[in-house]
Amino acid sequence: MVKRNPNMAKLTAGYLFPEINRRKREYLQKNPGVKIISLGIGNTTEPLTPHVVEGLHHEVDRLSTREGYSGYGDEQGISDFRAQLAAKLYGGIVKGDEVFISDGAKCDIARLQTMFGSEVSIAVQDPSYPVYVDGSVIAGVTGSYDQSRSQFDKIVYMKCCLENDFFPDLDNQPRTDLIYFCSPNNPTGAVASREQLKKLVDFARKNRSIIIFDAAYSEYISDKSLPKTIFEIDGAREVAIEVSSFSKPSGFTGVRLGWTVVPDQLKFEDGTPVRNDWNRIMTTLFNGASNIAQYGGMAALEDEGLAEMKSLVSYYMENAAIIKKALDARGLVTCGGINAPYVWAHFPGRKSWDVFSEILEKCQIVTTPGSGFGPAGEGFVRFSAFGHREDFVEAIKRLEAL
Amino acid sequence: MVKRNPNMAKLTAGYLFPEINRRKREYLQKNPGVKIISLGIGNTTEPLTPHVVEGLHHEVDRLSTREGYSGYGDEQGISDFRAQLAAKLYGGIVKGDEVFISDGAKCDIARLQTMFGSEVSIAVQDPSYPVYVDGSVIAGVTGSYDQSRSQFDKIVYMKCCLENDFFPDLDNQPRTDLIYFCSPNNPTGAVASREQLKKLVDFARKNRSIIIFDAAYSEYISDKSLPKTIFEIDGAREVAIEVSSFSKPSGFTGVRLGWTVVPDQLKFEDGTPVRNDWNRIMTTLFNGASNIAQYGGMAALEDEGLAEMKSLVSYYMENAAIIKKALDARGLVTCGGINAPYVWAHFPGRKSWDVFSEILEKCQIVTTPGSGFGPAGEGFVRFSAFGHREDFVEAIKRLEAL
Repeated sequence: MVKRNPNMAKLTAGYLFPEINRRKREYLQKNPGVKIISLGIGNTTEPLTPHVVEGLHHEVDRLSTREGYSGYGDEQGISDFRAQLAAKLYGGIVKGDEVFISDGAKCDIARLQTMFGSEVSIAVQDPSYPVYVDGSVIAGVTGSYDQSRSQFDKIVYMKCCLENDFFPDLDNQPRTDLIYFCSPNNPTGAVASREQLKKLVDFARKNRSIIIFDAAYSEYISDKSLPKTIFEIDGAREVAIEVSSFSKPSGFTGVRLGWTVVPDQLKFEDGTPVRNDWNRIMTTLFNGASNIAQYGGMAALEDEGLAEMKSLVSYYMENAAIIKKALDARGLVTCGGINAPYVWAHFPGRKSWDVFSEILEKCQIVTTPGSGFGPAGEGFVRFSAFGHREDFVEAIKRLEAL
Repeated sequence: MVKRNPNMAKLTAGYLFPEINRRKREYLQKNPGVKIISLGIGNTTEPLTPHVVEGLHHEVDRLSTREGYSGYGDEQGISDFRAQLAAKLYGGIVKGDEVFISDGAKCDIARLQTMFGSEVSIAVQDPSYPVYVDGSVIAGVTGSYDQSRSQFDKIVYMKCCLENDFFPDLDNQPRTDLIYFCSPNNPTGAVASREQLKKLVDFARKNRSIIIFDAAYSEYISDKSLPKTIFEIDGAREVAIEVSSFSKPSGFTGVRLGWTVVPDQLKFEDGTPVRNDWNRIMTTLFNGASNIAQYGGMAALEDEGLAEMKSLVSYYMENAAIIKKALDARGLVTCGGINAPYVWAHFPGRKSWDVFSEILEKCQIVTTPGSGFGPAGEGFVRFSAFGHREDFVEAIKRLEAL
């Protein structure tokens, strides 16, 4: 018979969010009729905006005509779209042919893991978005799960906590081939300063590592002193790949559209440009993002689209301010919620899943337990700013029961 | 520095279709103004059909309202859609929760390769769709490329040629963990009979192998005696996964929508249901097909949609008949073009790329060189039936120059 991939067997329990959904359903079964407020998964709730909707309709209409119909497009994305994205979101500091359009950041991270293969060493922020670790386990990069440490062997966990301003202590960190880094951070809401990112880039340059920079929340940065892309940092073009998405700024979570920037200067040890292998991965194992979604994305980059994006982001950031204020008022220490749509609340001495259960039972609010993002997330709970305004108004009332 | 993934370095030249495009562009540069007819890549050319277009528009409208908006959906696809697909395209012989919706068959094949890992042994039809081999090379399943045999080490190439009715000689074939099998076949256009598929399933059962059955062209089967899915064969549920797509039957090549069926009974050696690991792969490394595309797919499964699908398939099959007739009239031996949208033409004693060049230069027609699909494709050229009718009418005139 066919043997199960031993790497699949290393994975622990389920992927975090399905597990949260399971517990939510279980609670609802026991307490039918209760209205739960979900501040768990970072799932957008506000409708697609008018100019984007127009772009989507227009492409559907085009595909329904003989002249406008197109089948397979370039796997890397529509050429004009790539150029526009480089110009509008990167102010020209990256080039169109360094931008690869995709069906989302999560899928691109998985494909990057396929490209790098099983022989690389990796570091992740602890806590971090689960796909960096789970995808690396599947790719065969890690050892087994060590129950006592709640960590996988052969991963360097870069602790990000209150004590270090949620920025890893790079001075005492071993070299790895890859460094996953997310800013604005999911789940902590911490946003790396220019100095911090310079430190990270210098560290990668010194060690000749490659940073996989997850910028999925970059549009939530309103403070102009904070870098919105790793490529604002000198030297980053030689050591970084950036993954990003239309999910959070334009509400494309269900529409599916993201991108990855691989700069020309990034090379493997043998001199092969990383961009060449990424191009091979994208053309061989992927077939392009939906053309409809791509035209929606192009509309989002036009002036009206960018204005809509700004107001959508503002809406969610007001939610963030509301929930942060309420948590602060309860005497909790929080991080995030400013320039980032997540608030990371500390419950010292408590287990995250216990806090999750308590908040679910007392307030009928779903959060995300911090330990689900890594061992250093223990004692924290994440509140997402994605939701309708009235749910936040209601949520802060309910939190008084805590 | 970071070492290049050694599996990436094993890949030869470029992926087939970009290479064909490169040669086409080169020819156009030397011969500006020439009108090339593309019968190369199997790319749909006819517009999306009215009922499908309505489904797409409707979902875009829904996403623009507060009540109708949805963000992330289930990574496995919309539950109703999965159920409808099982009912309408499989007549209920598979269940909705065995159907996993995706952004296309190519991407699912890549994810299956990730799931099975690097330790499996594989067999492919020779010739075959390049992704089975290239994806397996990237996954680390193969050895190096052997220039003298035009084959990768550690792959069993199952020769499919005129002499064996394009069905492999299973009696003399070693066991492998996985068997990639495509029917209606890309590129040969051969369609396996019920007896042949029974032989394949029995072979897999005897060896406890898993068949990855590519049914992307199944809607092109009009002959009712031919099976449209591997699951029509007794015992297939214990040994087969089926990958399929809306690309070719509904013109979704650019819209992106496919699916994979993993039956409950399929198990790994340790008893783990394959479906569990596939579910983990889909939830961890994928984020669902575009909701807009999914609603288009649901429209395609309604009565009007199915009728449109039938007439779209008929259109392309008339093209197939036209080109097959012309090639036969020139005394060429051909396979396919009946119940399959590809015609596989034999040019004995010639090199495929030479024939490709000759047809491009003499007839300004782009085909696909058979050797690009594997060594047993040498001496053959593939003509695709995807194109506008007038291009086929023109193509058969031009072929007289051959």
